Amino acid sequence: MFGPLLQTLRQRRPLIHSITNYVTINDCANILLAAGASPIMADAPEEAAEITARCQGLTLNLGMVHADRIPAMLASGRQANAMGIPVVLDPVGAGASTFRTDTAHRLLLEVRFAVIRGNLSEILALAGGAGHSRGVDTADTLTARTRDADIALAKELARRTGAVVAVTGPTDLVTDGSAVCEIHNGHPMMGSVTGTGCMLSCLTAAFVAANPAEPFRAAAAAVCAMGLCGEIAYDRLQPGEGNASYRTRILDAVYNLTPDALEEGARYELH
Amino acid sequence: MFGPLLQTLRQRRPLIHSITNYVTINDCANILLAAGASPIMADAPEEAAEITARCQGLTLNLGMVHADRIPAMLASGRQANAMGIPVVLDPVGAGASTFRTDTAHRLLLEVRFAVIRGNLSEILALAGGAGHSRGVDTADTLTARTRDADIALAKELARRTGAVVAVTGPTDLVTDGSAVCEIHNGHPMMGSVTGTGCMLSCLTAAFVAANPAEPFRAAAAAVCAMGLCGEIAYDRLQPGEGNASYRTRILDAVYNLTPDALEEGARYELH
Amino acid sequence: MFGPLLQTLRQRRPLIHSITNYVTINDCANILLAAGASPIMADAPEEAAEITARCQGLTLNLGMVHADRIPAMLASGRQANAMGIPVVLDPVGAGASTFRTDTAHRLLLEVRFAVIRGNLSEILALAGGAGHSRGVDTADTLTARTRDADIALAKELARRTGAVVAVTGPTDLVTDGSAVCEIHNGHPMMGSVTGTGCMLSCLTAAFVAANPAEPFRAAAAAVCAMGLCGEIAYDRLQPGEGNASYRTRILDAVYNLTPDALEEGARYELH
Repeated sequence: MFGPLLQTLRQRRPLIHSITNYVTINDCANILLAAGASPIMADAPEEAAEITARCQGLTLNLGMVHADRIPAMLASGRQANAMGIPVVLDPVGAGASTFRTDTAHRLLLEVRFAVIRGNLSEILALAGGAGHSRGVDTADTLTARTRDADIALAKELARRTGAVVAVTGPTDLVTDGSAVCEIHNGHPMMGSVTGTGCMLSCLTAAFVAANPAEPFRAAAAAVCAMGLCGEIAYDRLQPGEGNASYRTRILDAVYNLTPDALEEGARYELH
Repeated sequence: MFGPLLQTLRQRRPLIHSITNYVTINDCANILLAAGASPIMADAPEEAAEITARCQGLTLNLGMVHADRIPAMLASGRQANAMGIPVVLDPVGAGASTFRTDTAHRLLLEVRFAVIRGNLSEILALAGGAGHSRGVDTADTLTARTRDADIALAKELARRTGAVVAVTGPTDLVTDGSAVCEIHNGHPMMGSVTGTGCMLSCLTAAFVAANPAEPFRAAAAAVCAMGLCGEIAYDRLQPGEGNASYRTRILDAVYNLTPDALEEGARYELH
Repeated sequence: MFGPLLQTLRQRRPLIHSITNYVTINDCANILLAAGASPIMADAPEEAAEITARCQGLTLNLGMVHADRIPAMLASGRQANAMGIPVVLDPVGAGASTFRTDTAHRLLLEVRFAVIRGNLSEILALAGGAGHSRGVDTADTLTARTRDADIALAKELARRTGAVVAVTGPTDLVTDGSAVCEIHNGHPMMGSVTGTGCMLSCLTAAFVAANPAEPFRAAAAAVCAMGLCGEIAYDRLQPGEGNASYRTRILDAVYNLTPDALEEGARYELH
């Protein structure tokens, strides 16, 4: 199911505009190149919308967000909506500070997203609804939740926003509000590399930009691809290598991933 | 002496907030993960203190400091002081510009630091006292100094600030104002990788956050660990590899460092 | 011809101040170290000129430029001009947004550059003259151009600005307005690593700073060196490696490049 979506991505080579944090911005650019897309980074309000106008997809990432980046995000988001190109939201740290949670809610009010991708606590912070920041209680809340309740919340967020929602963790979950794809690719060591989530959000934007008619399948393909590359990279680790080599090997695996390998390696259930 | 401190770090997995420069911010996040800690980066004044409130340690790094980052540093520093969690100062470039030297002095006035870690010229810029920026003369001054005078200045800075002072260079020096630990780990090639100092400061915050009752030993352990990983990484270099592979191998060595290896590989004198 | 210029660079170890984008800033610092130079990054207007005053060369890079970085660029550029040290302009994205094109033209008006290095569309955006931003038409325009017309435009830009102009692409072109050096080093895979252009601009600043009397030959040497390292790195790629390993291997190749290897590996025509 997912192989052809990667093939389309490599053929169309979409130009992806990312407004993203500076911790992982280099890895975000390199994963886009590895996947066959082209990256452009620009977050000055003077040029953000003009840059978006040249692109086929947009990622808005809230990591280390600054007040002066918000107008750029809003301008680019509106430009993308006006053009009908997909926008991916990565609500990094939503729930960790009032500022980030509020910024995420504001973006949700003013921009229409094709995909929202986050970990469970971030998605819960958004699913709680505007004005219901869970803040520091998030972690406690999570432990009491069941898998079914998580799925219900993700579905509700998808229906409310019109976006595909991707919740990544030990098992990943992608939903468009009705269909659900559970994904079992990935490796625990991915948690020891900063930015695997940010990279996945950019990869998702590339998959969806190249396959705009099917954002649900494209987002699921991106999540499978990232997890599969985490597995391939882990298998290639040599004795004495650690998280820095693993980072390099993950990107290398994306660079070398073929449509056939994705088709064969993807492990998911649709329901 | 240092092995158990690393063991505690790997068990407690402290969450470390870093307000740091963008040149080496990715490496700073990855070295924290390599050591078993968790990184969070946030430098917007709107959220800095709230983020610190969730953490067990804080690093303030003056590399590429901007005016709008200073209120975030002050707010996070005060929050950390109020909570009693350790704060590490990395005065990158103190002495190289009036702005950085003045910012360092301001932070020293308003925040109580557990550790100050810098190279000799940076520490001398601070030890010179408020209003005594050595500026461009620093390098010349250094060559005329003796080792004993350097130790005396570091001790004086430690006593004046109440912080452990770590001066890193060919031989590293850690002092709490009375005891002194001289450390002989490290490799000259570490100077060809940008950010080894910044990374060490984050690693120090992780060691001290996990071992808050003994900041002097924890800081010395971090300095030994970093130097030892520089040695291990150098030994693992393959023909044709250079400073970029060396950077990767240093982080990998931190990831794989065991308490026993640190215990055996640390080379220091206490006096 | 170029070997001795690298030898001088490794002997003089110039300190290079870079005001550059945050996507590739870490790679820029590490390539300067790999080449034997020393990097310093500082873009706060409070300190930019004071930092430049300590240096032997300056790079101004327009990637992700923000309004508040422009006063720092102008102050550092004027300081460098007053001292007579070389300034390299990398007009990243000139032509892609009005803001970047205008900023590039403003810098050209107020700062005297030793070298301008960009890809063809960026150089054309500058060669079009102040007020003639080609914007989104650049790509179309390019396909209709001939090599001779490109050379004529680059020469004209060099004569107008007094700078050596380096246009990088499948074949690189360096001109001082009369002499032209065409360079055939490089590998297509370099386009899959973000920042190879930014890195080359910093490397160029290092070569010119170490050889200030001959900016034309020094810029050509830098372009040959970068391309040659791209070839060496490609030859060293192992099965399964991709663009991330390639990035590491390019920097490693710069670290290990000898004057003799540059002398033998440079492929160029002077006319």
